[in-house]
Amino acid sequence: MREVFRNELDDLATQLVDMSIKVHEAMRLANQALRSNDLELAEKVIEADAVIDHMQYALDQQAAEMLALQAPVAADLRAVIGSLRMSASLERMGDLARHIAQQVRIRYPESAIPDHFSDTFTRMGESGEKIAEATENLLSNPGLTAVPTINAIDEELDELHLSIFAKLAEAPAGSLAPRHIADVTLLSRYYERFGDHAVSVSQKVEYLLTGNWEPYLSKK
Amino acid sequence: MREVFRNELDDLATQLVDMSIKVHEAMRLANQALRSNDLELAEKVIEADAVIDHMQYALDQQAAEMLALQAPVAADLRAVIGSLRMSASLERMGDLARHIAQQVRIRYPESAIPDHFSDTFTRMGESGEKIAEATENLLSNPGLTAVPTINAIDEELDELHLSIFAKLAEAPAGSLAPRHIADVTLLSRYYERFGDHAVSVSQKVEYLLTGNWEPYLSKK
Repeated sequence: MREVFRNELDDLATQLVDMSIKVHEAMRLANQALRSNDLELAEKVIEADAVIDHMQYALDQQAAEMLALQAPVAADLRAVIGSLRMSASLERMGDLARHIAQQVRIRYPESAIPDHFSDTFTRMGESGEKIAEATENLLSNPGLTAVPTINAIDEELDELHLSIFAKLAEAPAGSLAPRHIADVTLLSRYYERFGDHAVSVSQKVEYLLTGNWEPYLSKK
Repeated sequence: MREVFRNELDDLATQLVDMSIKVHEAMRLANQALRSNDLELAEKVIEADAVIDHMQYALDQQAAEMLALQAPVAADLRAVIGSLRMSASLERMGDLARHIAQQVRIRYPESAIPDHFSDTFTRMGESGEKIAEATENLLSNPGLTAVPTINAIDEELDELHLSIFAKLAEAPAGSLAPRHIADVTLLSRYYERFGDHAVSVSQKVEYLLTGNWEPYLSKK
């Protein structure tokens, strides 16, 4: 029984890694679609999100079965509940990469990013990919050292997000079409939220490794 | 043992109702702060969100203890897992009401809503309050009839959200300051996401009452 549970827990961990790989891929391709205004690639990202949704569903079903059949306690129970929470965050990260791709599709053949903002979004895309990669690495090889890395990249994303508003505030009235400003605002928010969910995953890993919920509460 | 568990499950349900009451209150006051550009009220909403965060934490801790100590199965297990998910959605609804209040604070003493958009945001506020009230009623008195009501209000919010973009697209270049357009875009997104989370809560209730995960998957 114990060994069965151990194997199933390993299986949940593998599924989380698989989800994080898909999320990383989605962010990478969404960035590429955005930078090169590539409709076909954007469609691919949008379509692929259903796979991530289904992975979450499968993982959640398995976690629920484990709770029902094995009735884990203490650290084992924390691991199953943590997996449920992490799968929800990863699913949401997939949604946000899809939202980026959807902005490309809505605005096509025009670019979703006005020229003036292309540098900032290149940097947001880089930070988005970095945090997706760090999340994948953290789940593949759980440890506390990745936690501050993820927090630092999240701060980069927060600063870039704020810099967008500073840039918008500086822009002379009439220099940007309202729909461009709306696009830029939403895109920036998607990257910023993507980072928040990566932090949330890293907090769960931290909690599982230490049993300490404090970071989860204090960083709210 | 059985009766202890039943009492604890009732207690979880009561905690969810309490959270939904606070969320409803937060949405009501955030709307009022936004409409009347009331900084003091906005501060109150921002501060009160910590209470909702703490309610989620307490509920989650209790649910985890129930899983550990009582090892529920079948419908009981579904109820505990469902409670964990609903508390996460309600907590997020609290965050979004806080974000609305934060927009008031950031822009104060200027109004966060340009004149041209005040009617739309009055309607969004009304729909936001209606969906928060419907969520509170659903949790107080679970049943399937509230589910289509919540879906219908969510559609209102989605339509209002889209109408904001149509309005932005029509606005003559230069008629709106970029920061106003960014404010309007974010505020609208907060209301739209608030509705999504209410739908998510209603899907969990539906799942608990019917055992059917389909709506959860198909509405992704």
